[in-house]
Amino acid sequence: MSDLESSLRDLLVIPSVSGEEDAIADYVVARLATKSDWRVDRVGNTVIAHRDGGPGPRLLLCGHLDTVPGDQGVDEDTDCFYGLGVCDMKGGLAVMLSLADRHCALPMTMVFYPCEEVAFERNGLHLLGPAEAMVADHDLAVLLEPTDGVVELGCQGSLRLRLELAGRRAHTSRPWMGVNAIDRVGELLARATDFERRRPLLAGVHFQESLSPTRVESFVANNVVPDRARLWLNYRFAPDLSGEQALEQLFEWLRPVLGDDDLLEAEEVVEGAAPVQEGFEALIESAGQVRAKLGWTDVSFLSSLGVPSVNFGPGDPLLAHGGNERLEKVKLHSSLETLASWIDSVAASV
Amino acid sequence: MSDLESSLRDLLVIPSVSGEEDAIADYVVARLATKSDWRVDRVGNTVIAHRDGGPGPRLLLCGHLDTVPGDQGVDEDTDCFYGLGVCDMKGGLAVMLSLADRHCALPMTMVFYPCEEVAFERNGLHLLGPAEAMVADHDLAVLLEPTDGVVELGCQGSLRLRLELAGRRAHTSRPWMGVNAIDRVGELLARATDFERRRPLLAGVHFQESLSPTRVESFVANNVVPDRARLWLNYRFAPDLSGEQALEQLFEWLRPVLGDDDLLEAEEVVEGAAPVQEGFEALIESAGQVRAKLGWTDVSFLSSLGVPSVNFGPGDPLLAHGGNERLEKVKLHSSLETLASWIDSVAASV
Repeated sequence: MSDLESSLRDLLVIPSVSGEEDAIADYVVARLATKSDWRVDRVGNTVIAHRDGGPGPRLLLCGHLDTVPGDQGVDEDTDCFYGLGVCDMKGGLAVMLSLADRHCALPMTMVFYPCEEVAFERNGLHLLGPAEAMVADHDLAVLLEPTDGVVELGCQGSLRLRLELAGRRAHTSRPWMGVNAIDRVGELLARATDFERRRPLLAGVHFQESLSPTRVESFVANNVVPDRARLWLNYRFAPDLSGEQALEQLFEWLRPVLGDDDLLEAEEVVEGAAPVQEGFEALIESAGQVRAKLGWTDVSFLSSLGVPSVNFGPGDPLLAHGGNERLEKVKLHSSLETLASWIDSVAASV
Repeated sequence: MSDLESSLRDLLVIPSVSGEEDAIADYVVARLATKSDWRVDRVGNTVIAHRDGGPGPRLLLCGHLDTVPGDQGVDEDTDCFYGLGVCDMKGGLAVMLSLADRHCALPMTMVFYPCEEVAFERNGLHLLGPAEAMVADHDLAVLLEPTDGVVELGCQGSLRLRLELAGRRAHTSRPWMGVNAIDRVGELLARATDFERRRPLLAGVHFQESLSPTRVESFVANNVVPDRARLWLNYRFAPDLSGEQALEQLFEWLRPVLGDDDLLEAEEVVEGAAPVQEGFEALIESAGQVRAKLGWTDVSFLSSLGVPSVNFGPGDPLLAHGGNERLEKVKLHSSLETLASWIDSVAASV
C-alpha cells in the first residue's frame, strides 16, 4: 500500500466542510511534525510548512483543506477512490504530503488553508497576516486545485452584476398601457448574443470568456404588468482585462438599452491572473497538456503577491462539487510523479 | 345638494375593504328599508332588493360593496369627489341607490355584494345560494363597474399559466457544459411576439387579446448556470374562446419549444362573457359609446346564469386600484341620467 494512497484514505475520512477544518489541520500538522527538516507553523487552521534548501528557486505549493458540504460516503475499488472532496482537493493534499516525504535540494513551502470554498473574506490564504511576506517571497508556485493532470495557466476573473430594469405597471387586461419589466429582461437576454465573449490567446493558451444569467426575479401581482425585474449576470473575463475594464465592457454593451430608472450594481468583482509558462516548461512538458484555467482559483491571489503560479492537481474539475466525486488511482500517482520529476528537474538545472 | 352626491358622500366615508363590508351593507339596507315598495333580503353582507312591477322585462342591477385596501382620504371640490373606491365602485352604488328612489313600472332587482376584489371563492355574487335562481330569472342586467360612462360589452376570459423550464446545471466558468434555464426563458419571451393576440369583432365591438408575463424566478447559486426557471403568463382571451380553447391556443404555441422535462400548469382559468347589444340599444345610444370589456368582470357570472348583461358605470376604470381615485360630479350625474332614461325607454316600449 503506497503512502500516497494511505494519506488520501486518511484525509477522506476526516470531514472538513468550510469552517470545520480543525481535525484535518491537526492531521496535516501531525504528519509534517514527524519530519525533522520541516518547520511547521499553524495560524488558526492554516498550516504553513517550510523546508530550507540550496540556492535554487524557492517553490510554493498550496492547497485548501475544506470541501463543500455533502454526504457522499467514502469508498474505494481497485481503480478509484470515491468520496466528498476526493477531487476538490484531497487528492492534491495527499500529493503535497507525499512530496514533503521526498528529498529535494530546493527551498520549499507548503500552505494548507481553510475556507477556500466560501467567501473571500474567510479564505485562509487571504488571511496570512505576517506570513504573507514570507509566502510572497517565492519564485514559483503550484496550486493543487484539480486540473485532471493538465497544467492550467492563470485564471479568469469574475464579475457579478445586478441589474434592476424599470417598467410601468398596468393591469394585464390592458398591458399596452404599461411597460412590462419582464419583457425588458427578455429583450436584454435576446441581445446577450451580441455581447462579445472574447477568446484571447495569452502566453500560448486560449481563454474563453462567458456571460451567464444566474438569477432573475420579478413579480407584483397575478394581474399586474410588473414595473421591476431584477437580473443577475456573471461575466467570466479573460485575465488581460482588469476587473474595472471588464465592468466597462459590460457597461458599454448595456448602455444603449438602459434607461434613467434602471439600476445596476457590481456585486462582486474578482480579478483574474495572467498566465505564465516561464519556469513551468518542464512541468508542462511532463504533463503533456496545457490550457487556460477558465474558472477562478487562488492563482489569482498568488499572482497578486507577485508569485508566478499555475494550477496543477489530480482530479477532474468537472466532478468537483458534483456530489459524485471520484479519482482514478493511476491519475493520483501520475500527478505526484509529474510534480516530483518537475521539482527534480528544476533542482538539477540550478 | 342632490341625493346622489349625498349618497356617494355617505358611502365614501364607510371603509369597506374586502371582508369588512358589514357597515356598508348596514347602510344600504337602512337606505332601502325606508322604501315601502322594495323588499330587502340580506344574506351575510349580500343585500338583495326587489321591487315588483308591471309585465315588462325584469331588470337586474349589480354592484360590489368592497374596495381594495388603501388609505386615500375622502375629499371633494366643486368638480370632483376623491376617495378610495370612488371609481371602483362607490359611484356606481350611489347611482343604484338613486335609481331605487325613482318610480319605474318594470320589475327590478338590485344586488349589492361583498368580496368582488378578492378570490372568486369569496365573491358574494358567486355565493347567492337559493337566491341564485331568483337572480337568474331576469331579462337584462347592468353591472355598475366603472366604465367611464361607456357601455362595455361582455368581458374577456383570463388564463394564468405557470411554466417551469428545465435546463442543465453547470459552473458559470464553463456555461457551455450546461443549459441555462434563464436563457430558455429569454428565448420563449422573444418568441412571444409570434403568439397571435386575436382581435375578433363580436357583436359589433373589437376585443383585444393580450399575453403578459407576470412573474419570473430562477436561481441556484451565484456561480451556477440554473437548471430551472419558472415563468407565469397571463393570457387575456376574447370571449369567443372557452377557457379550454384558450388553453389549447397557448399549448399549441408553446408545444414546439417545450421539452420532456418542462412542466406547465394552468393555475387559473376564468371564462369570458359573450357581448350582447340586444335589449341595450337605447342605453348604448344614450351613452354614445360602446366597446368591448377587456378586463374580467362579473358580467361573466351573470352571463353564466343566462342573464344578458353589460358593464356600465361612472368612474374611469384606469383609476381603479391606483390609489388616486377621483370621479367628476358631472359624470356621476350623467351615468344616473343615462341609466334612468334607458329604464324609462324600456318601460315605455312594453
